[in-house]
Amino acid sequence: MIRIALIGTGLIGGSLGLALQTPAARAGPLRDVQITGYDRDKQMLQTAYERRAINQQARSLAEAVAQADLVILATPVQTVQTLLRELAPLLAGGTVVTDTASTKVQVNAWAAEFLPPGVGFMGGHPMAGREQVGAAAARADLFKGAVYCLTPNPGLAPQGRQLMEEVVQAVGAKPYYIESAQHDAYVAGISHLPFLLSTALVEAVSQSPDWSAMSLLAAGGFRDVSRLASGDPQMHRDICLTNQAALLGWVDAAVEALLKLRGHLSKDETEQLDALFDHAKQVRDAWLAERMRGLGS
Amino acid sequence: MIRIALIGTGLIGGSLGLALQTPAARAGPLRDVQITGYDRDKQMLQTAYERRAINQQARSLAEAVAQADLVILATPVQTVQTLLRELAPLLAGGTVVTDTASTKVQVNAWAAEFLPPGVGFMGGHPMAGREQVGAAAARADLFKGAVYCLTPNPGLAPQGRQLMEEVVQAVGAKPYYIESAQHDAYVAGISHLPFLLSTALVEAVSQSPDWSAMSLLAAGGFRDVSRLASGDPQMHRDICLTNQAALLGWVDAAVEALLKLRGHLSKDETEQLDALFDHAKQVRDAWLAERMRGLGS
Repeated sequence: MIRIALIGTGLIGGSLGLALQTPAARAGPLRDVQITGYDRDKQMLQTAYERRAINQQARSLAEAVAQADLVILATPVQTVQTLLRELAPLLAGGTVVTDTASTKVQVNAWAAEFLPPGVGFMGGHPMAGREQVGAAAARADLFKGAVYCLTPNPGLAPQGRQLMEEVVQAVGAKPYYIESAQHDAYVAGISHLPFLLSTALVEAVSQSPDWSAMSLLAAGGFRDVSRLASGDPQMHRDICLTNQAALLGWVDAAVEALLKLRGHLSKDETEQLDALFDHAKQVRDAWLAERMRGLGS
Repeated sequence: MIRIALIGTGLIGGSLGLALQTPAARAGPLRDVQITGYDRDKQMLQTAYERRAINQQARSLAEAVAQADLVILATPVQTVQTLLRELAPLLAGGTVVTDTASTKVQVNAWAAEFLPPGVGFMGGHPMAGREQVGAAAARADLFKGAVYCLTPNPGLAPQGRQLMEEVVQAVGAKPYYIESAQHDAYVAGISHLPFLLSTALVEAVSQSPDWSAMSLLAAGGFRDVSRLASGDPQMHRDICLTNQAALLGWVDAAVEALLKLRGHLSKDETEQLDALFDHAKQVRDAWLAERMRGLGS
């Protein structure tokens, strides 16, 4: 039997729990998994239990991780720091710890700082999510076809690495090894910058005295571009503050791109606008086609 | 019988044609509608005909509008200008002309300039769309529950106005009267600015030498915020250039919002970031709840 402690039973933790218990997951090497859940929010824990995302509820961190082969920290990134510190004295040698947070440099540094020798660590980040939060929004298919980033850790024993890959594959995702600094730079551009643009859109339009009238006309385009602004504010604040340097660079790149568009627009530069819009469409269409191939495979 | 000439049988024209022929549409005052389609792109016209978005194909503009009670121009905005000029000598007195373009000030000015007295005009803009283009992407339910902007025209006879409202209701949308200048200012914020932000995102990230590696990690957030960048470049260029002043103002507001976020981020201002992210979430959640009520009614 593989014993998994799931710390944090919200959207991501709950979805991992559900995904690990599908028939497809049970058909693989993780056929015999026991999931113990823990969440400081007792209501969240109860919901995860009622939805069968976890097999049992722990009353404390210590109870959750006792005898665990794998501890999954599915919380906002700042909470990972607190948890690693609190867990350090509770973990038996040979336990493997992973997280699901959106930034990896600081998480790896905290793991190196707090975890005792003998406890393995591998940072993880499933590239999937929803703007809804909590165990009620969890879905067994959230990770289906998704890339699941894993940060290589030479200190981790081969069986720890193998267990991590089995978990990732069991939830329907694809293991993707990437250095933590590179991961953080990349996700700043393709995940955290989109969040800031989404938020900037909502802030810009809602400051208008006409917003309540304007908002009646807002339709599918506004809905999609603004979607990320409905995400969990605390999670996003943590992400931004643990990935500051990379994100600042991307904000500058986005402002530059906007001002370039503004320049062409203000000078009626039809051909330049055409070329820019064509280019963006080609890039985005190519990305989408590639993604569809990836999700289908 | 009501005779409708549909000029432009792409996504919007094709969807109007399909929507006008559903059982729900036929149960209302427009039970007896004959739709003649025309498109310079013969393949597009043929597709619309094969999908039964139109009842017959015209070989020329003149043939399409002969005997028409209502002429719908469902083309990019710059093409509306050309069409109004070409149609002017072809239209019989009493004909009503409308368009579906995303900006309304210039369209109304062109209608006043080109159309002869006796031909009625009412600008229209259904607040619905998809990033796919063409008759093949047309959907009978594209306008279901959508707001359909109509620009009031005191010169239009009451029966012309009534016909327009019947068409809007027949396709499942809600007539919404709004002055053209106000319309253009509003849609610049809730529709054209989101397009520019979407495009700026794609341009910013794809200029990175790491784009091909980064793009592997891009998931649902990137997909949604970048969606509009996959839209029709020519249509968007037309929209931008016919709504320049309003759009430039919104670009400035978005850049200001981004730089405000950047400032808080660079100075580790946790509380200000929290407040901003909370505010954006509240605004966006409230908008979405209101929209859901609207679509459900």
